[in-house]
Amino acid sequence: MNADDLVELEAIKRVKYRYMRTLDQKLWDEMATCFTDDAVAAYSGGKYRYEGREAIIEFLSRSMGADTFHSSHRIHQPEIELTSPTTATGTWAMDDVVVMTDWDLTIRGAAFYEDRYEKVNGEWKIAHTGYKRTYEEMQPRAAVPGLKLTASWWTTGGVSDIDA
Amino acid sequence: MNADDLVELEAIKRVKYRYMRTLDQKLWDEMATCFTDDAVAAYSGGKYRYEGREAIIEFLSRSMGADTFHSSHRIHQPEIELTSPTTATGTWAMDDVVVMTDWDLTIRGAAFYEDRYEKVNGEWKIAHTGYKRTYEEMQPRAAVPGLKLTASWWTTGGVSDIDA
Amino acid sequence: MNADDLVELEAIKRVKYRYMRTLDQKLWDEMATCFTDDAVAAYSGGKYRYEGREAIIEFLSRSMGADTFHSSHRIHQPEIELTSPTTATGTWAMDDVVVMTDWDLTIRGAAFYEDRYEKVNGEWKIAHTGYKRTYEEMQPRAAVPGLKLTASWWTTGGVSDIDA
Repeated sequence: MNADDLVELEAIKRVKYRYMRTLDQKLWDEMATCFTDDAVAAYSGGKYRYEGREAIIEFLSRSMGADTFHSSHRIHQPEIELTSPTTATGTWAMDDVVVMTDWDLTIRGAAFYEDRYEKVNGEWKIAHTGYKRTYEEMQPRAAVPGLKLTASWWTTGGVSDIDA
Repeated sequence: MNADDLVELEAIKRVKYRYMRTLDQKLWDEMATCFTDDAVAAYSGGKYRYEGREAIIEFLSRSMGADTFHSSHRIHQPEIELTSPTTATGTWAMDDVVVMTDWDLTIRGAAFYEDRYEKVNGEWKIAHTGYKRTYEEMQPRAAVPGLKLTASWWTTGGVSDIDA
Repeated sequence: MNADDLVELEAIKRVKYRYMRTLDQKLWDEMATCFTDDAVAAYSGGKYRYEGREAIIEFLSRSMGADTFHSSHRIHQPEIELTSPTTATGTWAMDDVVVMTDWDLTIRGAAFYEDRYEKVNGEWKIAHTGYKRTYEEMQPRAAVPGLKLTASWWTTGGVSDIDA
């Protein structure tokens, strides 16, 4: 590992960060820049598997695109290995919260990602991504006494109802 | 992006990390070192806007200073751009939990920060910070059967009551 | 701080990330590579103190080893200082969730770590680790209406029961 390797690591982290941000902000066109053409995604221990950038984006935008779907995916603790000048692997810890106001559900969980990256025309892209969950749980929201949504990116412009 | 740029990025991340830590540890004097004199903060989609370091610190120490206010702000996924030798922008994902034992409330949420940084006398400082929430929710604690606070930085010295 | 220092910081972050991952994945042999022989751990404000790598691993594998113990420890916001070519200190923010299906409990919390690192035979190791909690809370799971575990690393292979 030397300083030049760190520049590559930073570029790899950045494409992963952009992927996670565009997922939660529902910026599907920008998300498409994160993947190789033939990228493969295998979410939830492989239960959801999609081949090709278009299929991945189609799945994510369809299943997570609604304004009532508030998602917060956070990745941590990157362990990235450069395996050649144009390939790398990465392990990440993830945790996520999804507040679905139409389905009256909160889903919370944690997982570990195993990714592969490729450098294409000088830009690192995600070639393979997938995660296996440590745990996941689901909870109806209406059954929680007094639980109240106080801000939403989509319906309150990200502004809180709570007064400081 | 080269290795020298990474040194700047690390310094920018560090001032942001110090800001988040001093917020949760209520170290207001140390927090003051994180901002430019004329820094602007626009929290919660701009609902809470403060101009100048003193106004920012005054707001935060007043609204979050009580020992009954247990906050955990965590930032992730930095996308930092150096826009000149002395200016930079940064996008961060955030999630936070606040346990208010006096108001019997838990507040949880997620957001994205958009920051600007300036290098002043060789030190990076936060010149502008603000976030927009993906979601935020509020929940009364007494209505949760069996919920029990088992540690507090302020009242148990950070030690847990739970026996391993 | 220069680019060579960043290479050291990356190596220090990596050993900490490996420690957190092996904790949640229960990979005790790999975890042992993270510590110096005489490492000291002082968890929960010093309530749980263990001296020596073997004692630390024994405590963690005993208290967190069961397949019914689903833990998610996440560390953030590293403030690492190189104090000599072979020693360093580090402050980290942490948050954790533990879902104990046998004890019908969820434990959630946040803390700050204060670590010391040593470079031994060219490899950075954890020499001292400890954290103090901002808050911690415990909640019985059966009392939460409709709460359902939908994935487990140990019992569902990390695959979710929820259909997208």
